[in-house]
Amino acid sequence: MSLYLGIDIGGTNTELGIVDEEGQIVSSQTLSTKQCGSLFSDYIEALSQQIAQMIANPALTDRVVGIGIGAPNANYFSGCIEEAVNLPWTGNTPIVADLSARTGLPVVLDNDANASALGEHSYGVARELDHFVEITLGTGVGSGIYADGRLIRGYQGKAGELGHMAVGEPHQRCGCGRYGCLEASVAAPAVARRAVSLKKLCLEQGMWSELCDIPDEELTSKTVAEVALATGDSLARQVFEETGEILGRALAQFACFSAPQAFVLFGGVARCGDLLLQPARKAFDEALLHIYRGSIEILLSSLPKGQAAVLGAASLARERAL
Amino acid sequence: MSLYLGIDIGGTNTELGIVDEEGQIVSSQTLSTKQCGSLFSDYIEALSQQIAQMIANPALTDRVVGIGIGAPNANYFSGCIEEAVNLPWTGNTPIVADLSARTGLPVVLDNDANASALGEHSYGVARELDHFVEITLGTGVGSGIYADGRLIRGYQGKAGELGHMAVGEPHQRCGCGRYGCLEASVAAPAVARRAVSLKKLCLEQGMWSELCDIPDEELTSKTVAEVALATGDSLARQVFEETGEILGRALAQFACFSAPQAFVLFGGVARCGDLLLQPARKAFDEALLHIYRGSIEILLSSLPKGQAAVLGAASLARERAL
Repeated sequence: MSLYLGIDIGGTNTELGIVDEEGQIVSSQTLSTKQCGSLFSDYIEALSQQIAQMIANPALTDRVVGIGIGAPNANYFSGCIEEAVNLPWTGNTPIVADLSARTGLPVVLDNDANASALGEHSYGVARELDHFVEITLGTGVGSGIYADGRLIRGYQGKAGELGHMAVGEPHQRCGCGRYGCLEASVAAPAVARRAVSLKKLCLEQGMWSELCDIPDEELTSKTVAEVALATGDSLARQVFEETGEILGRALAQFACFSAPQAFVLFGGVARCGDLLLQPARKAFDEALLHIYRGSIEILLSSLPKGQAAVLGAASLARERAL
Repeated sequence: MSLYLGIDIGGTNTELGIVDEEGQIVSSQTLSTKQCGSLFSDYIEALSQQIAQMIANPALTDRVVGIGIGAPNANYFSGCIEEAVNLPWTGNTPIVADLSARTGLPVVLDNDANASALGEHSYGVARELDHFVEITLGTGVGSGIYADGRLIRGYQGKAGELGHMAVGEPHQRCGCGRYGCLEASVAAPAVARRAVSLKKLCLEQGMWSELCDIPDEELTSKTVAEVALATGDSLARQVFEETGEILGRALAQFACFSAPQAFVLFGGVARCGDLLLQPARKAFDEALLHIYRGSIEILLSSLPKGQAAVLGAASLARERAL
């Protein structure tokens, strides 16, 4: 059975995993991205050595048929990571060319959002679906669009920027400089902002909520979800109700593009589960164009939190090999 | 050289054309859809006879390799026209099965918007493009999305309903029952409504415009464009400026899905050319996410008005054969 090496490159760590056809990680390692320093050639040297060591295992040698890399600002077509602000190197780094020359294996690079979507199709809840959209709700909002049995990459690999569609709150300014982007309304920082502002309103009205005992700077998407789940606090629940409503209405808009069978939610904000899903589904059903009613589900990713990125990266190699 | 038979089915007429690889219509005929009556079997009988007669031409026999049909409410996957309100037959009509049985030729069916997009790719301004979105501005707003070298059809063939994305004027009610759809702001009836309302405002303010001499019921997208082009009337131009602005902002949103190289505008409202294009391009450039700047054009369809539908239909057969 073929194996695929998935590499997820983050600013702090680079996670490596050798993955089988069933999505089992049979071997994994971590490389400190930071400790490799600011020279890309040093990083490639360290990464190549680590790969050589993993593949040298006699049980794996010859079975690893390709390498997939998920990274921020990765360009599928150029094979370069382009000006990623959270990584130690500057400029365009030709990681596909360098790593395939060093390893002799075919290497595929793509951005995290596309890797996530492919991972969900190879190993997760979208395994049986020919049409779905993966939405990653993290520090930002990423998206990977899978339609007609394959990922849509678009001109220069730039498809799937749904986080920057103006379907959020019209007056919220996004990090991109524009207004109303979905990302500015439903990514983790937006959830935190919503919690702070609802708490302030609560205090002004002389009311009380569990959130009032938490300092503003500790009101994150995660802590608010914990409070909501542990105590059922209505204000904490409201934070996710408002977030879910905006998200649900946005997904109803997105349906008009590729007519998916499902939206798959992934990332930190999605891990609160029903707190977000229930209001999202209600708003989605109300806003959906009639021809799509009853045919589109909103699902949560089924990939384990700590493994999703490596599984996604491995699925890039798997897509190429199939 | 292979030939393709394109059939465009409308409520009044059915247009047939035999098209070569270069997009030349080498033979064409018209069948009255209406006069075939309300029995679908009678229509298929008449259509089959007309096809047999066209193909019987010795110069064409054996060179026609397939039939493509563009029709409203057509389903690519089922091969049926489903409950099309403007056609004489009720229910789901299995036109692909019936016509291929009668003619012995492979038959492909799709909706008008997808046929238009494929036609533009086979024979028109999108001939060199792997990624583009065709927007048809007519009685409604249709769209066909071409990405990564092929048309996106989506689950049950329902992709590409961009006319029903809520990126128009928020308070305009659409025929679908929802609010803010692009269709309700930029299709031909919306342009006429805008002309009537601007004219009313003009009269209320004691101003004058060429439009004031035209009765409300004659203020169509076409007449307003004629006035604007013939006289430069500022109110008539304003009708298209406002329409173009809304359209341009909407296209900037759509870019985030499939990252096209171009949007191709087609249909009655697009025929006014620069009146619409100039404000659309300006608003588009202002609203576009920075990563797309400079890489996406807004173009007008280059297919001749009277031939576009048949060329689009023929390109469905061509897509299948290639």
